[in-house]
Amino acid sequence: MLASEVFERDFTINSSGHLEIGGCDVVELARVFGTPLYILDEEKIRGNCRTYREALKGVYPNFEVVYAGKAFLTQAVCGLVYQEGLGLDVVSGGELYTALQAGFPAERINFHGNNKSRAELMMALKNGVGRIMVDSLMELETLIQLAMETRTQPQIMLRLKPGVVAHTHTYAQTGQEDSKFGMGINDGVAMKAVKIALASPHLKLLGFHSHIGSQIFEVAPFKATVDVLTAFMAEIRTQTGFVAQVLDLGGGFGIGHNKQEKPRALREIVAEIGRYARERLTALQYPLPQLVLEPGRSIIGPAGTTIYTVGNIKRIPGIRTYLAVDGGMTDNPRVALYQAVYEGALANKMNAPLTEVVTVTGKCCESGDMLIWDLPLAVPEPGDLLAVFDTGAYNYSMASNYNRLPRPAVVLVRAGEAELIVRRETYEQLVQNDLMPERLRVKPEAEPIAK
Amino acid sequence: MLASEVFERDFTINSSGHLEIGGCDVVELARVFGTPLYILDEEKIRGNCRTYREALKGVYPNFEVVYAGKAFLTQAVCGLVYQEGLGLDVVSGGELYTALQAGFPAERINFHGNNKSRAELMMALKNGVGRIMVDSLMELETLIQLAMETRTQPQIMLRLKPGVVAHTHTYAQTGQEDSKFGMGINDGVAMKAVKIALASPHLKLLGFHSHIGSQIFEVAPFKATVDVLTAFMAEIRTQTGFVAQVLDLGGGFGIGHNKQEKPRALREIVAEIGRYARERLTALQYPLPQLVLEPGRSIIGPAGTTIYTVGNIKRIPGIRTYLAVDGGMTDNPRVALYQAVYEGALANKMNAPLTEVVTVTGKCCESGDMLIWDLPLAVPEPGDLLAVFDTGAYNYSMASNYNRLPRPAVVLVRAGEAELIVRRETYEQLVQNDLMPERLRVKPEAEPIAK
Repeated sequence: MLASEVFERDFTINSSGHLEIGGCDVVELARVFGTPLYILDEEKIRGNCRTYREALKGVYPNFEVVYAGKAFLTQAVCGLVYQEGLGLDVVSGGELYTALQAGFPAERINFHGNNKSRAELMMALKNGVGRIMVDSLMELETLIQLAMETRTQPQIMLRLKPGVVAHTHTYAQTGQEDSKFGMGINDGVAMKAVKIALASPHLKLLGFHSHIGSQIFEVAPFKATVDVLTAFMAEIRTQTGFVAQVLDLGGGFGIGHNKQEKPRALREIVAEIGRYARERLTALQYPLPQLVLEPGRSIIGPAGTTIYTVGNIKRIPGIRTYLAVDGGMTDNPRVALYQAVYEGALANKMNAPLTEVVTVTGKCCESGDMLIWDLPLAVPEPGDLLAVFDTGAYNYSMASNYNRLPRPAVVLVRAGEAELIVRRETYEQLVQNDLMPERLRVKPEAEPIAK
Repeated sequence: MLASEVFERDFTINSSGHLEIGGCDVVELARVFGTPLYILDEEKIRGNCRTYREALKGVYPNFEVVYAGKAFLTQAVCGLVYQEGLGLDVVSGGELYTALQAGFPAERINFHGNNKSRAELMMALKNGVGRIMVDSLMELETLIQLAMETRTQPQIMLRLKPGVVAHTHTYAQTGQEDSKFGMGINDGVAMKAVKIALASPHLKLLGFHSHIGSQIFEVAPFKATVDVLTAFMAEIRTQTGFVAQVLDLGGGFGIGHNKQEKPRALREIVAEIGRYARERLTALQYPLPQLVLEPGRSIIGPAGTTIYTVGNIKRIPGIRTYLAVDGGMTDNPRVALYQAVYEGALANKMNAPLTEVVTVTGKCCESGDMLIWDLPLAVPEPGDLLAVFDTGAYNYSMASNYNRLPRPAVVLVRAGEAELIVRRETYEQLVQNDLMPERLRVKPEAEPIAK
């Protein structure tokens, strides 16, 4: 069996038997940029953006797709999603800073978060962020105060708890409102927030937002959310006359990291959500608000591949073969955090049959530093290149410097061209914020030999 | 009940009812340095270093205590442990760079790791690192080759799998050698490595090392390890005549993050291990090698406290109260990773009775971003300061920029003085490695308003 058969993936393999991504030979990318290396496939990102827009185009008149930056945010990624017509979600001052640095128009940015600081809210107001997603009554009061101070009139959305909890392949609709995010509909907090917002001349309430989970593969929990939110909107219209201009259903669309998780075609799910929202709103005779979806993982996840160099290989007879690579939980913490399952193949041996089964470990001094259990692989040798797929989301963004490992570089590939969009961290940067009190210095400063 | 009673801790509380650490008012530290803030108590670090040295002093003639840098490594920490007479463990080029930058003498550094790169090994050789802990046969061969190339003769230790697996309060002695670390004794790999090392004129074999786990509270697994290692050493002496100069039992000494985990007094455990090693070696008529222990967490963990500012408080009737702070899984990933349990108290209300129970969450857009479940607390208000205790180990060292949150500053406190030893990250640093291809730029660069 070959990697393409075992993993049911369409690999591009060149005449040298090497994996190609975006028309670039991965072996050559590793040679030029070093490893570990994150590779982003530009056309896949653009294609995923278009899937959302095209899926909604036929079924809902007025929609916006917003990229959830927490999945992977750099200036180049901001530029890419902007060119594809997407808006941008940020969740902190640092993400907002990154977006603004890239020149992303502030009015197309949504600012999320369960605990934005005053400084972050001020930054959002001063830069004219398009929509502030208000998470609590307390934040609403703070925002009114800051809007008065800054003489601005921010546009806001209220984050609601629809009482729908999605768990990957299923969901539960409960009265349970046990979440740190949003305001409860059942306990009356949401209605209270609406009335406060409508009474304030310092804010402009646009509508409502919810986010029900992540890695969701079914349309049913989204439909249930539409039911709850539209019913709430209708109730508000009755009580206050307020008609929402925006209905934001959040993100959480799943991607299959492996063949056990085959999602329905994304386009189909998205279109069905759009159709259903339109039906429900029409049935309620509600003027169609702008419909917003906020995908992150499904845009960037499948577009990312991490390349590692194979180091020590330990064949323990009767037990297992440990194959160690030059990265690990530092560049992909999702395995240790969420027991995420990834697939991989030797990028320099793509046409070799998979005759071994190995366990891929990282180089951290930590037992939990595992990447893939029981991976079918061609016979590995030190110096081989291991490609791990679907690492675009929540890998670079969650990466750490544990064990003082520098974070990898990121290259964007397209049509045979590779552009470095994030430089590899240096040892110098690892200590750039260190301050050494003179009284603790061991001996006169000497430049270490780093190479 | 007060925090000091509930948590059975000895807090220093000043006349304003504020927590004091190292003679510094924590409220004042937060005002000066901002939050989140890591505080390190210098005297506690020094005291923990001395506990190890004093415990071994009476019971074993020739010992070394080596600080495991992966728990928390900055230049100032290097200087501190050096002044206390400890050696230093590093596990990567980045940690080695940090140590050398601090002026730590290379000859007192041990270089660990299951997958050191050629570049890292070269860096160790060129800088004259004291001991390279060889993890595999493959690494041994690489090292011989590099030693020849560089005309150096590195001192090495072999990392062995003693077949002892310690699980917090218990341990198993098994034939199971299923670990990415070290060389098996049972399968003959260790003996093979000894013979290769002894046959090479390019290396100097010093002895043997093992590390059996972390958060170990009992002496029994260490004794079992001594049994296995000394038996192996005796066997090697018989077969080859080689007498080890160093016996390194690694680290893994537990600290109690909460009262359910009350470890035996550290000094007692360490002394018992020393006594036992001496007895065993004497029984084998083995010349006493240098005995090495490698604590990390137990040196730095209890010396660290994280200070957060309380933000949104959500009281959900009948469910729970969520108290959100201005940090989270970014500065303390151990709760999400290992379900670690921490204790906390309001640093500005230390004399107030604990009349509430709250759940402390972070500010990340991630459901798993929880810090403490069901924490008894004084009545909290926004702006209060939450101190979370025992965060010295594996917090800063594992911290990430997820959600593009800048990593906190670190202050070292002692006798009422506070020194900044790590500056807070800036927004500018978050994007310092970003490269923005011109073709992706949205509009001409404008400086965002960050404040």
